[in-house]
Amino acid sequence: MAQDKKFVEEITPMDQDFTQWYTDVIKKADLVDYSSVRGCMVIKPYGYAIWENIQKELDNRFKETGHENVYMPMFIPESLLQKEKDHVEGFAPEVAWVTHGGDEKLTERLCVRPTSETLFCDHYKNNIHSYRDLPKLYNQWCSVVRWEKNTRPFLRTLEFLWQEGHTAHATAEEAQEETIRMLNVYAEFCENVLAIPVVKGLKTEKEKFAGAEATYTIEALMHNGIALQSGTSHNFGDGFARAFDIQYTDKSNQLQYVHQTSWGVTTRLIGAIIMVHGDDSGLVLPPRVAPVQVVIIPVAQHKEGVLEKASEICSRLSGLVRVRMDDSDKTPGWKFNEYEMKGVPVRLEIGPKDIEKGQVVLVRRDTREKVFVPMDELETRVPELLDSIHKNLLEKATRSRNEKTYTAVEMSEFARILETTPGFIRAMWCGDRACEDAIKEETGATSRCIPFDDTEPVSDKCIYCGKDANTLVYWGKAY
Amino acid sequence: MAQDKKFVEEITPMDQDFTQWYTDVIKKADLVDYSSVRGCMVIKPYGYAIWENIQKELDNRFKETGHENVYMPMFIPESLLQKEKDHVEGFAPEVAWVTHGGDEKLTERLCVRPTSETLFCDHYKNNIHSYRDLPKLYNQWCSVVRWEKNTRPFLRTLEFLWQEGHTAHATAEEAQEETIRMLNVYAEFCENVLAIPVVKGLKTEKEKFAGAEATYTIEALMHNGIALQSGTSHNFGDGFARAFDIQYTDKSNQLQYVHQTSWGVTTRLIGAIIMVHGDDSGLVLPPRVAPVQVVIIPVAQHKEGVLEKASEICSRLSGLVRVRMDDSDKTPGWKFNEYEMKGVPVRLEIGPKDIEKGQVVLVRRDTREKVFVPMDELETRVPELLDSIHKNLLEKATRSRNEKTYTAVEMSEFARILETTPGFIRAMWCGDRACEDAIKEETGATSRCIPFDDTEPVSDKCIYCGKDANTLVYWGKAY
Repeated sequence: MAQDKKFVEEITPMDQDFTQWYTDVIKKADLVDYSSVRGCMVIKPYGYAIWENIQKELDNRFKETGHENVYMPMFIPESLLQKEKDHVEGFAPEVAWVTHGGDEKLTERLCVRPTSETLFCDHYKNNIHSYRDLPKLYNQWCSVVRWEKNTRPFLRTLEFLWQEGHTAHATAEEAQEETIRMLNVYAEFCENVLAIPVVKGLKTEKEKFAGAEATYTIEALMHNGIALQSGTSHNFGDGFARAFDIQYTDKSNQLQYVHQTSWGVTTRLIGAIIMVHGDDSGLVLPPRVAPVQVVIIPVAQHKEGVLEKASEICSRLSGLVRVRMDDSDKTPGWKFNEYEMKGVPVRLEIGPKDIEKGQVVLVRRDTREKVFVPMDELETRVPELLDSIHKNLLEKATRSRNEKTYTAVEMSEFARILETTPGFIRAMWCGDRACEDAIKEETGATSRCIPFDDTEPVSDKCIYCGKDANTLVYWGKAY
Repeated sequence: MAQDKKFVEEITPMDQDFTQWYTDVIKKADLVDYSSVRGCMVIKPYGYAIWENIQKELDNRFKETGHENVYMPMFIPESLLQKEKDHVEGFAPEVAWVTHGGDEKLTERLCVRPTSETLFCDHYKNNIHSYRDLPKLYNQWCSVVRWEKNTRPFLRTLEFLWQEGHTAHATAEEAQEETIRMLNVYAEFCENVLAIPVVKGLKTEKEKFAGAEATYTIEALMHNGIALQSGTSHNFGDGFARAFDIQYTDKSNQLQYVHQTSWGVTTRLIGAIIMVHGDDSGLVLPPRVAPVQVVIIPVAQHKEGVLEKASEICSRLSGLVRVRMDDSDKTPGWKFNEYEMKGVPVRLEIGPKDIEKGQVVLVRRDTREKVFVPMDELETRVPELLDSIHKNLLEKATRSRNEKTYTAVEMSEFARILETTPGFIRAMWCGDRACEDAIKEETGATSRCIPFDDTEPVSDKCIYCGKDANTLVYWGKAY
């Protein structure tokens, strides 16, 4: 037991140092490893399996909403990147440049894609001619590179994995519908799969994507009160279409520009899972993306019949849930800690006494509650328990988010909240960029979004300048 | 009908110009598009869906054989690439170099991975300590870049998609077993999923992978008699382990080097599908990777009850096979051509007369044979038909490959075969690199492999130098 304790003690407690806790968890839960390439991570099997489950769930949703996967080149010629003015200004400072192929110096530099709007536009220009070619509803799963100075695994890395949807539509209305549809898909996914509640809303001009007419976001709140932008959906209007000359002939034979959108989520979502659900014993994985949903641990496995029974249960459950049995020669105590650290939602213990009584012990990772369940009820009870864990995680995260959502009508209050109990701060804004800049300058907080579902003014004055204001903004410090 | 004919005539006949036929097919079947980036292709939805099916089938096989997916950085620092001497010599001349991040010049160049041995070794060095850490059975799905001069979609592109397995083992025997296991997985996959027969064998020293002790290959033969290396599996012995110092403590507490393998297949397999099965009407897709296995075409769809019945059949089949109904306003003739071009294995026609008779028409893409099938038998007959198409494609491809496999005992014969009826040429080789070089120089043929399943000598002299020889080699021109 002394050894078991020590194992747990290796994680820095959250309240003592949240950043160190995060670093401890990702290392000890075997999610990532550092690499010899600055700012790039190695995603290890356990971390990658979470990403695969995220991909599967999202990809189904994309296909159900009519999207098709494609693959665009990873390089963008400099001249192509420069076609849309705002876009290149936003991205050029943070791209990796390829200047040589083998020994040959290239006549034109290529950047490694930081995002692929320009490539999709180039393709659409050659492939959209008539209204019959619309809409184009494309998505791709790939990696992108942004030359960040400060990096942290999953949250901000030089290279990261993501999906980027890129669509082209006949009308502005359709593009706007698509933008909101995909924002809603993201929000639904976060709640129903990751058990993470999000605030949906509009980004301010200052915070919107380079080249977009409007950027919508889902914002999640981490356990320490810091916000995480978890997904974005952009409406480009016809801005890119004009820059790339993407026109189609409509039904009355008139040339029209298309209207476009793009939307993406990244491996950053794994960071959100860790920081929303994790605790001082390590990871707590939402069941619907957990690579292992149930781990079976035979107790006194050398005793007759234990391993046989454990294996039998393992195969009974294996079509229903993602189950794994650990019959290694480590002690049960070591295994309990190990799978707690790895956030496996349910531990199933079975020993000689349980077999005698025709039962097993199920232990939930989220509440640590133990229940004894008759063996012949496992096929119904285990999936129920996983659903109940999902529900509890979502409720707990929602409660925590709500508790950390504050209202401020004066800057002194705003600043005090940020310093003492960070979280979302609901405060009025006049719409002036100068106020937004000043708030960031003075407090470090940024506007997270103008929320859809929380619009009632909390005062009628801008929290910064005191002028008339009717826009409620969620502010906060963010990763 | 005149219009329908014209549509088909847009493909150049194979026998007239195979290269142009290939280009026509990939464009008209909507598999790829050219991009603004030299040598890089856009993989369109229909092409990418084939790749997704390939991925799903292979990934299942990798997981069944105990492999786990991971993700390594896309960049390799120059000093890391240089650690294994043969490897860097083989790859450095054909890598893309990143020299700048944003405005900043990097202190060390990074290459975009051409393959990831060095990154996996770097990771293994830090993560393998004891025999308990072995074996490591990792795989990743990603894109890689090789700075090729001449490119052709799917067959040879600057960037391509692939999977690369990288494993580390305690002993040389285990590494060799793994190398052959994965070669067999590839061969089984090609035959049972892609309906492509392959020759398994060993590469000569000249043709082996840079840094490998031994490279094994699966070689397929295209319709025009040109060979395509379709997958490779490498045994590295402990060469990389020595270069990267990857050692573990064995059970008797001795330090040992690990033994490693790597193996990969690429989007090139889509090129193989096209060139093995395609015909003058376009693509012929093997059913097990076809994005659409059955296309339902309502005939006289404006007549009462036709669309309803077609939809009903579509939903009945949709859990069983990948089915799609085309009720667009195009003519049935146009649709017939379109889906022939796209290689959809089965066309299901249904019109008022069929409904009266309680039947549908099934037309196979491979033989164009038509059968009338009672409506209530579709759930069994359609999957059977798909299996029968698979079987026929494999038989046909095997017959074609066998017909194009020749034997030569003299160089004049060898040269004449290559010029008149290209294919695999079975010929003896003394083992001398000089003979291999000379054969390539004089005829353009390379050694494809020393086959596993065809070892009986065809003479006792080297076909080139006439010295004693006991190695039978398959030679051929290759993509």
